Parts: sequence; structure tokens; C-alpha cells
Amino acid sequence: MSNNKNASEIQAVDTTERITKLRTLFKKEKYNLTAYVIPSEDAHQSEYTAACDARRAFISGFTGSAGLAVVSTDDAALFTDGRYFLQANKQLDHNWTLMKQGIPDVPTWQEYLVQNLPKDSRIGIDPTLITACDAKTLKESLGKVGSSLVSTEENLVDLVWGNARPPRPCNPANVLPSKYTGRSHDDKIANLREELSKENYYGFVVSALDEIAWLFNLRGSDVKYNPVFFAYALITKDDIILYIDENKLSNEVKAHLGSSVKFRSYNAVFEDLRHLSVKFKSDNQKLLISTRTSYALTLAAGEDNTESARSPILDAKAIKNEVELEGMRQCHLRDAAAVINYFAWLEQQLSAGNVLNEIDGANRLEKFRGEQEDFVGLSFDTISASGPNGAIIHYSPEPKTCAAIDPNLLYLCDSGGQYKNGTTDVTRTIHFGKPTEQEKRAFTRVLQGHIAIDRAIFPKGTTGYLLDVLARTSLWKDGLDFRHGTGHGVGCYLNVHEGPHGIGTRIVFNDVPLQAGMTVTNEPGYYEDGKFGVRIESVVLVKEVDTPHNFGNRGYLGFERITFVPIQTKLVDVSLLDPIEHKWINGYNAECFQKVSPFLKPDSLGFRWLERETAALK
Amino acid sequence: MSNNKNASEIQAVDTTERITKLRTLFKKEKYNLTAYVIPSEDAHQSEYTAACDARRAFISGFTGSAGLAVVSTDDAALFTDGRYFLQANKQLDHNWTLMKQGIPDVPTWQEYLVQNLPKDSRIGIDPTLITACDAKTLKESLGKVGSSLVSTEENLVDLVWGNARPPRPCNPANVLPSKYTGRSHDDKIANLREELSKENYYGFVVSALDEIAWLFNLRGSDVKYNPVFFAYALITKDDIILYIDENKLSNEVKAHLGSSVKFRSYNAVFEDLRHLSVKFKSDNQKLLISTRTSYALTLAAGEDNTESARSPILDAKAIKNEVELEGMRQCHLRDAAAVINYFAWLEQQLSAGNVLNEIDGANRLEKFRGEQEDFVGLSFDTISASGPNGAIIHYSPEPKTCAAIDPNLLYLCDSGGQYKNGTTDVTRTIHFGKPTEQEKRAFTRVLQGHIAIDRAIFPKGTTGYLLDVLARTSLWKDGLDFRHGTGHGVGCYLNVHEGPHGIGTRIVFNDVPLQAGMTVTNEPGYYEDGKFGVRIESVVLVKEVDTPHNFGNRGYLGFERITFVPIQTKLVDVSLLDPIEHKWINGYNAECFQKVSPFLKPDSLGFRWLERETAALK
Repeated sequence: MSNNKNASEIQAVDTTERITKLRTLFKKEKYNLTAYVIPSEDAHQSEYTAACDARRAFISGFTGSAGLAVVSTDDAALFTDGRYFLQANKQLDHNWTLMKQGIPDVPTWQEYLVQNLPKDSRIGIDPTLITACDAKTLKESLGKVGSSLVSTEENLVDLVWGNARPPRPCNPANVLPSKYTGRSHDDKIANLREELSKENYYGFVVSALDEIAWLFNLRGSDVKYNPVFFAYALITKDDIILYIDENKLSNEVKAHLGSSVKFRSYNAVFEDLRHLSVKFKSDNQKLLISTRTSYALTLAAGEDNTESARSPILDAKAIKNEVELEGMRQCHLRDAAAVINYFAWLEQQLSAGNVLNEIDGANRLEKFRGEQEDFVGLSFDTISASGPNGAIIHYSPEPKTCAAIDPNLLYLCDSGGQYKNGTTDVTRTIHFGKPTEQEKRAFTRVLQGHIAIDRAIFPKGTTGYLLDVLARTSLWKDGLDFRHGTGHGVGCYLNVHEGPHGIGTRIVFNDVPLQAGMTVTNEPGYYEDGKFGVRIESVVLVKEVDTPHNFGNRGYLGFERITFVPIQTKLVDVSLLDPIEHKWINGYNAECFQKVSPFLKPDSLGFRWLERETAALK
Repeated sequence: MSNNKNASEIQAVDTTERITKLRTLFKKEKYNLTAYVIPSEDAHQSEYTAACDARRAFISGFTGSAGLAVVSTDDAALFTDGRYFLQANKQLDHNWTLMKQGIPDVPTWQEYLVQNLPKDSRIGIDPTLITACDAKTLKESLGKVGSSLVSTEENLVDLVWGNARPPRPCNPANVLPSKYTGRSHDDKIANLREELSKENYYGFVVSALDEIAWLFNLRGSDVKYNPVFFAYALITKDDIILYIDENKLSNEVKAHLGSSVKFRSYNAVFEDLRHLSVKFKSDNQKLLISTRTSYALTLAAGEDNTESARSPILDAKAIKNEVELEGMRQCHLRDAAAVINYFAWLEQQLSAGNVLNEIDGANRLEKFRGEQEDFVGLSFDTISASGPNGAIIHYSPEPKTCAAIDPNLLYLCDSGGQYKNGTTDVTRTIHFGKPTEQEKRAFTRVLQGHIAIDRAIFPKGTTGYLLDVLARTSLWKDGLDFRHGTGHGVGCYLNVHEGPHGIGTRIVFNDVPLQAGMTVTNEPGYYEDGKFGVRIESVVLVKEVDTPHNFGNRGYLGFERITFVPIQTKLVDVSLLDPIEHKWINGYNAECFQKVSPFLKPDSLGFRWLERETAALK
């Protein structure tokens, strides 16, 4: 899936009282604000947040994964992108103006603060919720119109939320054994220290939750769908300090970490950095921070004492070792069995005339996943979308509002699981009746893009920014396109969205060449508003490939697919295919049968469905 | 073709005396230089230069179109890219170190000045030969090691060259009638003034020779292959000043220009800008300069008084009007007839056992072009390359050194003409005997890239940077690639290389979306050092296309090909083709016959060759 989050009530919440209370806080003498910015992220710049950190959703009523709210003395604006226009329109009440990002002449939130608010405004923000880089750029832009960025000590939305705000989760952290990680945390830390010493950094402050989990070979459950836990870490030449609520740590975890790891309370990182800031100055040494580190951490360490770069842990984590790669392969086979069992079950239910809604479907799919070895939980909210709901790119069905699954419309199902040996993410679009010619043509164009990415071979150094076009050329021939990236990295029993690489039109993806051992999704789509959505998503691994020649001695890379849920041939418009594509489809479906059938009971519903669905396309 | 220039003697010149003289000039008291930088460009940052401006070729002996020389007190380094490694190796004598740009760990010339020369060096340069932007960046880098950039009043290489230096050409400028230009110069200037007034610029100084020629609907012959003349222009709200040697202007030209155009001598532009610099300051108005304007012009106007942007004339010129587009189509048909006549003649000569060298071929091709209506001259030095010479990407055969055309090797011919109604540029690779399997496979991979570009359909806003990958994916499957861009803009009876757009891996091409009315070449290649070269190049026009849908309401674009010289089917490895590619080849060749045969005498050698070569591939 290309981005989603918490369950979303697709209906407006009345936000009048919340906004009024927030505006009252603007007037506090020490702040005297014109506006307050409420990002989606938490203090770790997480994409998925715990309920206590869902401040933007609380204040605006909009629950999509991406977006930012600005409440000013006389306006409230919610900024989100094309994936969420429909959802935001439904969820925002009369207090809010939806700012459609990406549409010409609609300002970004930064432009809005500069252009739409009065000059000399005082713009409040919680400095833990914005990166140091973004804060710096913003301060400069605001400065040009005499406005200023005001870091608030408390989060003002939290004050409005009051006792109704859920507590911060404090679930235990658990050891992930080396049979899953393939590499000790000592080894990872030793590598990190090598990187730091090359540039003579004092140390690196780790703030991204998945980086902490990866580095220490621990997993948690503080954030829904992401097996992470709240913590910071500071790695220096001499020290390894984990800032964490010690209640989360069992003796087993402490034994695993060993005596070299020191523990301090979660928020003590700010205090420690403030103390160290004096040392940094006198020693003329810098602290490395990642570009995703919060402004608040930078303020604590001293802005001049830090140097910002892409996190070395992010880069190291992206390249999976052999144990992780094998774990990813294995969990994808079991995951495919669950999805296949679900589709088979759903088809039977619908053909028996049973009425099932989208949530019923999602729940049953979760149940099938739950039967699989090493399953821990979902990796994101299942998108189970019938007909027009499929066009809401990050639709999340809700019990009260979701639609019945209509056997005469396209059904888009984007789902994934967390397994101890890996994380999955798969989308298939299927039809239980007779698809229209338009649906088939759109499906086939999407499939051709999917195949073009899958078959790509490219020299080392090539980025996902450059490959993205391959997912679109077939769609473009029909004047079709999609407004999301083609692929994102996938963690190994970690976050389903992972950097630093990706396949897409965002220019940051041009900074990171794809490298052997990386995971990435291949998920082109097409969305016809009010009618249907098509997306075909598999996870692929980047691997070295042998080519007849090796021009430039760079070495060449390609993809190994690890998702094995068949492509529905009923939806393919054969007249559009070239023979290689035709062969690809049959080859892929045959591979699905060969690889996944051993995980299905012979003659079970799922087995028979798989057998039928993988019959060769004529 | 993707880049070439003057005739090149593929043999080393002894440069010892020249370098010694140059180093003596370093010691002049007012300079006291550590090194002197000698760029390829002239004062207009032209890619092709007049003989008097070929200073880098004079000092180094290396005659390729791209490169830069740095002579320091105890070293001489020549920087050029992959297209020219072989040529430079042959042409540079023992005084020179070849710095292969693009190879890992080889510094750029800027890095070389900073890293390889002593700190606190004084680096001399003629400020007319470097852009203001490049000078600024360079000064900053040099400043970090205490070095400085010294603008020399005279060009020191000219002093070394002395009387042997050819005089600056002073050929007449001629009117290009509106039946070729489709638009009056008054109209172009009015448009430019509109652009300038939007941003309240005082005016725009035009320094690129092709921009001046285009703006005034004049053509000249001061630079070989480029129909331009030496001049500058200054366009302000009230004035149109053409800085030009008045000897170049006939009464007809003066009448064409009208009374609103004032004339000043060529070099008076510096004096006028120095005077204006006072006015700019007092009026707080800025002069717009293009990013390609020389540092010398900026120094004259005052660095603070100028604002640098991509030239608005460059952008306007790139989008051809209907008259220009039709002219381009027409001249390409006649040009194709010439190339076809040549290939037919060459085949006959070789099969008769006659020995012909590469220059004989190029000369005969020029003769065939000369027979065509509206032909003016070549648009660049013909690349006529047999076997291994085809792997020298910008090989230019020389009478003394060139090879015989071997009927048993691949023959690569890249050539073009200037016609009053347009400019052509075409490359075909052919074989007169039996090609090897390796040659066929490489040719077919290149052809598949050519076809993929030709067939591309893409939404408005797409850049050539993004499309480039389509030219390479087929090659990559075999581990092949090429080290040059896929396509460049082509002028309309102007320079054969034209910006601002292009298809290629240079990130600047990501700044300029392809737009309807633009011209661009489609020229993937493959080069096997010491063996053969393959390149297939046609010119295409960007045009709006109808697609079944129009997602995002952006409108979609595609290409119209205008080069009609058949693709040699003998060289195609049919087993690699998909049916669409197969059909494309037959469709294209059939179109060549249909469109070009009317320009050939029935039953002539060329006609019969064309008929045979365009027979359908089975």
C-alpha cells in the first residue's frame, strides 16, 4: 500500500469547541500567537502515530495519514494531497478549508503562512513535531515578511485535548532473536561507530523509532501496525545510551542488551543534550543528527553543534542481509496463502448471495493471516474497497459507513502483515462477476506498468526516480496516470514504509540509487473517481543480475518478486498485451501456484481457487 | 549527432613552445599567475567557434568539441568527457595529462584548481570565456583555499598565437524572409519586452549568437556550420541596439530591421553597459542576463545590477511555429533523399570493389546534399566512420589518417545539413556485407530504445530527463549502455544543438518540460571500443496527441518523426523484437519509401536502393 494509517471515521466531527479553546490559548502572554501549526507526525517524525500523538486528527477531524493543520485567529486550513481529497472533503466540518496540495495555485502550508497570514505574524509550533531542517527553512521564509516561528513549551492541542487525550503507550520491548535479524546489535553499533569516526562526530542521536528497534534488535507495540517502542538513543565513541521508560525492559531484554548499554528516562535526552552542548562547543566536535530529527532535539544540543545528514542507520537498515531476505521470502509465501484463502472464501460467500460489507472482508482476511506461522499483526489498516471506494486511494472502511462488497464491481484489497521474519504489503484488484471493458482496459494498463517495473534491469547507480516512468508509459498511452509513487521500501518486521529509497516522482528518490538487498513495492494504479480503483502491488527485492555484457563495469541490478498472489486473468484485455507480457502473466501465476499451494490444504477452497486462478491465460 | 565540431587532425601537435610562451606571460607583473584556464567556448559561449576562437585547440592540440585546458607553471591538463577519450589520447602530446571526466576519482577542472594546485594560487582566465554563474561558483571554491580568479584584460593564448591567429570573420548578415521564419522580428521583440516588463527589468542583453540571429530574422556565416554572425544586442523598453560591425549590414538588412534598431560597434556593448551601470544603481532597476552570459558582460554592467535567468529568447526559440515546423518537415525529406542517394552510391562502389575512404564518403554525401533545394551547407562535420572508428563517438575523418570504408564492418554515418527552411541531423548505421551476431544484437537493442522513445506518449510537464530511461531499458537488458544523451533540440536553419530542453541524464533536462512545437533528436547508441559503433538518430517534433482519456486534464504529448532514412533490416535480430516493434520497423520503412521516393528519380540507383531497403521485414 502506498500510505495509510489509523481507522478513519468517514464523517465530519464538529471541531468548533476544540478550535475555540485552541484560539484562547493563542492569547497566553508568553506566546501571543497569530496561528498554530499542527503536523501529523509525533516527536520521532513517525508516519504512523500512537493515539496520544494524533493531534492533527483530533483538531481537524481528518484522519488520513498525511496532512497538516494550521489554525489561525480567523481561519483553519487542512493541507493534504490527492490521495485524500475525497476523504478530507467528507471528514472536515464547516470550520475547515481544504487545501489540495498539488493542484495549481493552491499554496503549500509554508506558502500559506507567508502569503495568507498577516505580516509580522507569530506562528506557534511544538518543536518536537517538525524537523530541524524544515524549521530552518520555515524561519527564513517567515522572516522575509517579518513573521516568526514560536516554539511552544507545551503542545497547545494537548492542552485542549486535556484528560480525554489517551495516555502514551508503555508496552514492553522484546528481543528479536538473531535467527530473524541475522546480525547482532553489537555489530550494527560497531559499524555505526566506524561511520561516525570517519567524520570525527561526537556521536549520533537516534530518534526514528524503527531505527532504534533495528539497531538494538528489539521490537515493541507502542504504535499500531509498527512493531516499535518509544525511545531515543545516543551512540558515541564511549557510550550507548537508550532513553526509555525502564518499565518497558524485562531482564531478558537487559541481558540481551548487555552491560555496555546505559538506560535513561525517555525525556532525559533533552536534558543530556543540553549538558553536552557545552562540551561540543569546547571540544569543537559536532553531533550528527538525521535530517528527520526534531527541531526540539537540535535546540537542546545547540543548532551550531549539530550537523545534519541522512541517517546512517536508515541507509544500513534498508539493505537487508541474507537472513532478513530469506525471512521476507518465507513470510510472503504464508501471507499469500492467507490472501488466497480470503479471496476464495469471499468469492464463495458472494456467489452464495451472502451480503458482506468491506469490514467483514477485512476482518476475515485478518483471521486468515492470524492462522499463519510467526504472524504478529497487521502492518497497516486493511483497505477493503468495493467499486467507487477503490478510487479513494487510502480508503479505510468503517463499521458504520462502509459499503457492501458488490460482486458486480471491482474489489481492491490492499493489506499486509507483520511476521517475526518480515513485513508484507500486497494489493490485488479482483472482480467476482463480469468486468466492463473500461475496467479491463484500465487494469491491463496498470498491469503492464507493473510488469515493466518487475522486468526492469538497470545499471548500479540507477535511482527509483528514473525507473518510475516505466510504471506509467502504458497508462500514458491511454491518457491515464496515478497520483502516488510507484513503490516504497518495506521493513523487515518493521515499518511497512521505509526509506531512504523509493520508486516515484519525488525528487528525493533521485538521491538514492537502488542497491542489492533493498526491498521495494511495485504498485502502479489507476483511479476513476466515483467508479473504481485499480492497484496491483507486489514486494520485490533488488538483486544483482547477470547480463551478457557489463558495459562500464558497473554491474547490473534487477528485481526478485516475493509476493505470490495471482493476477486475475479475467481482468486482462489480451489485445493490449505483447507476447512477453502475456508470457509474464502466465509465468507469474504458475509460480504462485507452485510456491503457495504447499501452504494450502489440498482440495481446500483456497487450493482450488488458486488452481483455477492460475490456469494459463489464452 | 550528439556533439562535434571542427575538423580534427587525429595526431599530436607539439605544444611545447606554445606552453612555454604562455607560462612566460604568467609572470607579467599585473597578473603573476599560477595557472591559466582555457575554455572551448567563445565570448558568446558558443559550442562551435570560429577559427580565431579555437584557443583551447590551439594550445593543447586537442580538437574535440568539448574540453577545457588548464596550464599551470608545471603541468598542463586537458579535461574532456567519454566521447573524446580516444581522440584526446591520440592528439595530446607529452606535455599534457588527460583528465577523463566522468571516471571515478578524476577531478573536474574546478576541483583540480582547488585540490591539485597550491593554495593561494592566482588562476587567470579571460572573463569573456566563462559564464557569470560559473565564475561565481569558481570564485567561491577557490576562495576556500585562499586562491583567486584573475580576469585577464587580454587573452593570453591570443598573445601566444600572435599573427598566426586567424582574423575574426566579418561575413555579411542576411535577411531570412518571413516565408521561412513565420514571424516578424518586431513581433518577437514585442513578446520579449512583455516578458521583461512583467518583472520590471531594465532590459535584456542578448549574447548567444543563435538567439540574436533568431530574434532579428537574420542569418550569417561567421561560424562554420552555424548560420550566425558575431554581434550582441540590448533590448530595453525604449531601445533596440545591435552591436555589430556595420560592414556586415547591407542596405537590405538595414531596411529589414527598420528605424527602431540602432547600431553600435561589436565591442561597444561593454562600454555601454559600464555607462548604464550607474543608471541601474540610481533607478534600482536590474538588467536581465541569461545564465549563459559571460562574466565579462556582468562585470561591465555591475554584478549587483544583473539578474540571471534562462534566456527568454532560448525558451521562445525552442518552440517552433507552424511555418518553421513545416519547413523542418520539408527539408528533412530532401535531406533524406540525399542520404539515400549516398548510401546507394556507396553500396554500388563498394560492391564493385572500389576502395573509398571515410572522407571520400563524406564528400560525396555533401555533394548529394548540395543538389537539394534550399541547401546552404552542412550543419556539422560529417561523421563517416568505418568499423572501430564508429566507436569514437565524435569521430571526424581526416584526409591523411582516415580509414577505408570496409564493406565487412559496420559503417556509422552521422550528418546534417543547413537548409533555408530548417536544419537536419541524421545518423544511420549500415552494413554492406554480412553483420556478425554481436553487431546485430547491439543494433537491435539500440533500435528498440529508438522505437521506445519514438512511440512514447506522456503528460504535459514531463521532461526529457524522465524519458531518457526509455532509450536505455532494452540495452540494459544486455548490460549495454551509451555515454551520451539521447537527444538534443535542433534549430530551424540555426544551430544543430539547441536548448533549453533535451532527452538525457543531465539533471538540467529535468528543469524543462517537453512542449508541443519543440524539436528533439532521438539517438540512442552503443559503442564497442576498438570494434564498432551503432547509433540510430532521427529528429522528432513534440506534438499534442489524442488519448482515449485525459487524466488530470493535463493534455498528452507525443512525437512526430520527420527523418525518413530507412532502418537497415539486415541488421535487425528479429528474435529480440516484440510484434509492436516489428510492426514499427515495417511501418517506418514503408513511410520512408512513401515520403522520400517522390524526391528520387524513378529507377535511379537511390530509388531502387530505397525500394529494396524498405521491403517489409519478415
